[in-house]
Amino acid sequence: MAKMNDFHQFAEYHRPIIEAYMIDTISFSVNDERRKLEHAMKYSVQAGGKRIRPLIATATYSMFHRDVSPILPLAAAIELLHTYSLIHDDLPSMDNDVLRRGLPTCHVQFGEDIAILAGDTLNTFTFELLADRLPLYFPAATVLDVIRRFAHASGIAGMSGGQVLDLIGSTVQASESYLFQTHALKTGALLSASVTLPAILAGASPSELTVLNLFGDHIGQLFQIVDDLLDVTQTSENLGKSAQKDIEQNKLTYIRVFGIDATRELISKYIAEAHACLDSLTNFDTVVLRSMVDYIGDRQA
Amino acid sequence: MAKMNDFHQFAEYHRPIIEAYMIDTISFSVNDERRKLEHAMKYSVQAGGKRIRPLIATATYSMFHRDVSPILPLAAAIELLHTYSLIHDDLPSMDNDVLRRGLPTCHVQFGEDIAILAGDTLNTFTFELLADRLPLYFPAATVLDVIRRFAHASGIAGMSGGQVLDLIGSTVQASESYLFQTHALKTGALLSASVTLPAILAGASPSELTVLNLFGDHIGQLFQIVDDLLDVTQTSENLGKSAQKDIEQNKLTYIRVFGIDATRELISKYIAEAHACLDSLTNFDTVVLRSMVDYIGDRQA
Repeated sequence: MAKMNDFHQFAEYHRPIIEAYMIDTISFSVNDERRKLEHAMKYSVQAGGKRIRPLIATATYSMFHRDVSPILPLAAAIELLHTYSLIHDDLPSMDNDVLRRGLPTCHVQFGEDIAILAGDTLNTFTFELLADRLPLYFPAATVLDVIRRFAHASGIAGMSGGQVLDLIGSTVQASESYLFQTHALKTGALLSASVTLPAILAGASPSELTVLNLFGDHIGQLFQIVDDLLDVTQTSENLGKSAQKDIEQNKLTYIRVFGIDATRELISKYIAEAHACLDSLTNFDTVVLRSMVDYIGDRQA
Repeated sequence: MAKMNDFHQFAEYHRPIIEAYMIDTISFSVNDERRKLEHAMKYSVQAGGKRIRPLIATATYSMFHRDVSPILPLAAAIELLHTYSLIHDDLPSMDNDVLRRGLPTCHVQFGEDIAILAGDTLNTFTFELLADRLPLYFPAATVLDVIRRFAHASGIAGMSGGQVLDLIGSTVQASESYLFQTHALKTGALLSASVTLPAILAGASPSELTVLNLFGDHIGQLFQIVDDLLDVTQTSENLGKSAQKDIEQNKLTYIRVFGIDATRELISKYIAEAHACLDSLTNFDTVVLRSMVDYIGDRQA
């Protein structure tokens, strides 16, 4: 792999590799009515998106090792898990979104029953993928630790728990602590795992892991704050999903708690803190991750 | 553990242990709004049921080892996975069931959004449980193999795939092959795994595994055939779920394809084949599993 000077260049190179790998792993070639399920899974996985999580995973691993192919199964599993969560979050009984990445959402395209099953099957499949492929490259005990943490980050102590807080958020008294907790779980846990789990597989030291864990938490919050800001400053066309949705659904957002100006200040603060984490990793080339922080903080969609 | 002479005695002893273990593992003690999610998970897990899958897992392991405590995490994970599948199958967009084990279904009790998330979280949690607890007793590489097979049995090649075939079954030309495939995946894969996975952990030889795999397939079909029969011969009160539901929804069942009499003959055939598998395991005490086959074939609810 040629040396990469910024996240944009890194993403251009790695995004198609990650996407091809994901589609390949969920090509089950079923020859009966289950093909509708396979189509629904592929539809949502292929619908695009920034692939920010698997790119973070790959960039983190690349700080330790030149050959990043061993991390592909984990990078793909993280994005497949994220895709399952989007399919379920979009359902009529949840956020009731009809548009995602500029396309009809999975339940609009395939029906609610198939959408639920597509999400379920992607969720389950991530574990099959990790247990099947990671042992080709890493010690079994380390892989088990990664699977345990991966499941933890997506369960009640992570993504699913955050989704419950988010759903109930429109009905509670707005508070900073509730807002932070919601986003730390709903978005932060998996983004943070996208840094931490590759670092564990790469053989990071305990002190490096501590720093990278903190770094993951910062970019998790940063990502969500920017998301909340874009909901009020961008058009649906630009976002590829329904804008102004948070306000419409009275979601508990950074905008609702802090207002636009203070939200922008928070963004600058989290960028600075994420950079500071990287500064402390003096033995590593952090140029791609540093540029990625700027990209997350600056994105317009 | 005292020697058990039949499945009834075995179940009476082990069911409360399995149930207490399950509730303990999903007691997360969250102290915020996520407790609604935890309540929904516990509600569905505590709603009862025969616990046939974890009992099969425990009985299989007990043929190899006197101390069955190492298999508890797997037995619990299988029942928790089964519970997730019931919660999602009952949803309005799926089978639209309001009654399960004599109680309101999860979405009736907690709302559709929480029910979807309770299923998701149970699904994810099974993997955390396996990755966390099994390595205390078994080699890491074996645990990874079990996790891979467990995920496979619940994915598109197993339970989820079977649910799709079942959903679409009301609209297709009734055929024996479609019926067998549906039930082999929807019910058979996880029941079969309840035999095979404990045998792998117990250290079964390849030939023993082959026999037990076949045995698992037979009791999987047997279980489902009896289920189809009970739907037309029992009352809702006795079943603890809506009777006559299959006919109402035009489901592809054994009754629809074969009629009641031929279905009863099929039940006798599968009982005999399951017994024959056990007969060939001459080095083992199969009395509990043999009695379990009779129980499954004879059950009235």
